[in-house]
Amino acid sequence: MSKIKGTRAERELIHLFWKSGWSAMRAAGSGSIRYPCPDVIAGNAARHIVIEAKSTKEVCQYLTEKEVSELIEFAHIFGAEPWIAVRFDSLEQRWYFLNPEDIARTEAQNYAVTIKLAKGKGLSFEELIK
Amino acid sequence: MSKIKGTRAERELIHLFWKSGWSAMRAAGSGSIRYPCPDVIAGNAARHIVIEAKSTKEVCQYLTEKEVSELIEFAHIFGAEPWIAVRFDSLEQRWYFLNPEDIARTEAQNYAVTIKLAKGKGLSFEELIK
Repeated sequence: MSKIKGTRAERELIHLFWKSGWSAMRAAGSGSIRYPCPDVIAGNAARHIVIEAKSTKEVCQYLTEKEVSELIEFAHIFGAEPWIAVRFDSLEQRWYFLNPEDIARTEAQNYAVTIKLAKGKGLSFEELIK
Repeated sequence: MSKIKGTRAERELIHLFWKSGWSAMRAAGSGSIRYPCPDVIAGNAARHIVIEAKSTKEVCQYLTEKEVSELIEFAHIFGAEPWIAVRFDSLEQRWYFLNPEDIARTEAQNYAVTIKLAKGKGLSFEELIK
């Protein structure tokens, strides 16, 4: 995912949260920071969510072990729920929100989100914030 | 405050929080986003804090009405505490953390943090996270 495309996808998430009465913000490029850093953080008085967001033209989105473990670490320390957001741009415009525990591991110990997995285990945005 | 200098100051705050067992992240440049956005968000299981951070070589740091009101709005929706962090670089390297309610309003309805106000009303980082 290119940086510009990634930024646009994250901004769409920010917009969805604000429209629904949550506050949300994107993280600054984590390039030179050595600490775990999610792409998006959102919250309301009752819940706090951190998100690793990916949009892809392929039918499978891979995430590295490091991306997922750092998301979980940040969430644990902050007191937030960790979620993986994936959008398959070639197929449809909706996001799927997955619990990291539901994502299949590859042989190399990375994570793979297929469309099938997303449809089976993923929540819609409306389900996520319910 | 230049963008590079602002980024460096915010990164120092991120480092202070992680060193103290909190998680923290910087917000992406809010330039093209129309929603309120603090500079830094930090949290642990018990508390969540959003920060507008300023470092200055002057003896007084001004903040606009918009900067402060948007910080408070974000904090309110997210369920976090709003704090203004100011560092007077010509004087010393420490940060002062101020409750927006303690900051004096100027005639133009903006906010002004003098060194005297910071020393009188501001918390140190250690006091902030206590």
